[in-house]
Amino acid sequence: MKPLGRHVLAEIYGCEYDILNDIGKVEKIMVNAALEAGAEVREFVFHKFSPQGVSGVVVISESHLAIHTWPELGYAAVDVFTCGDKVDPWDACNFLTEQFCAKHLTAKETKRGILPDIPLQEAVNL
Amino acid sequence: MKPLGRHVLAEIYGCEYDILNDIGKVEKIMVNAALEAGAEVREFVFHKFSPQGVSGVVVISESHLAIHTWPELGYAAVDVFTCGDKVDPWDACNFLTEQFCAKHLTAKETKRGILPDIPLQEAVNL
Repeated sequence: MKPLGRHVLAEIYGCEYDILNDIGKVEKIMVNAALEAGAEVREFVFHKFSPQGVSGVVVISESHLAIHTWPELGYAAVDVFTCGDKVDPWDACNFLTEQFCAKHLTAKETKRGILPDIPLQEAVNL
Repeated sequence: MKPLGRHVLAEIYGCEYDILNDIGKVEKIMVNAALEAGAEVREFVFHKFSPQGVSGVVVISESHLAIHTWPELGYAAVDVFTCGDKVDPWDACNFLTEQFCAKHLTAKETKRGILPDIPLQEAVNL
């Protein structure tokens, strides 16, 4: 019973307001987080809210990275879902924590898609 | 200590191959799931993999809905993250389960962004 993927939900606190409220910076950091973790970026979309906050997602061959920011609280809700053994979702989370100049990260990992007898070659869409 | 949001990770099994492998159908069902749950759709992006599978995300004012499908396994990995009290992520999960003609749903909810003394009006980006 091998899971298809790993999904990390990360609470990133104490981030810099000016980064979390800048859609260009958030988008660039998220795409770079995917690349740093060794993922293949397929699509991405980001949205800026008024008066503040950014939401966005990077779709990767191995699943996705998503973010929602509350600059006024210094808080970013991140989740990183990866399939296969090539990409480690924790690498992306740690990169984001560093890039947001965050004071604190709490995160937990959930195994996704636990099905019996899945050949490994079917575990990643390439 | 009121959480900012609720994040449901849903494993949807026994889905119909022809639905999970059709990017148009998956996109339409995901957008409708957001609307059925009362969310406001901001952006969406979907990607079709070869030979099979679809990944995509709907960004909503209240956070996001994401999906990754393995049609050959009849499996969809879904996550629905909502902020505020207006939208119930379980409504979207139940709608998706029905629309995918799924046999089985297992899901769990995680509270996101538990910070002290957050005024309710700051909890949702509108």
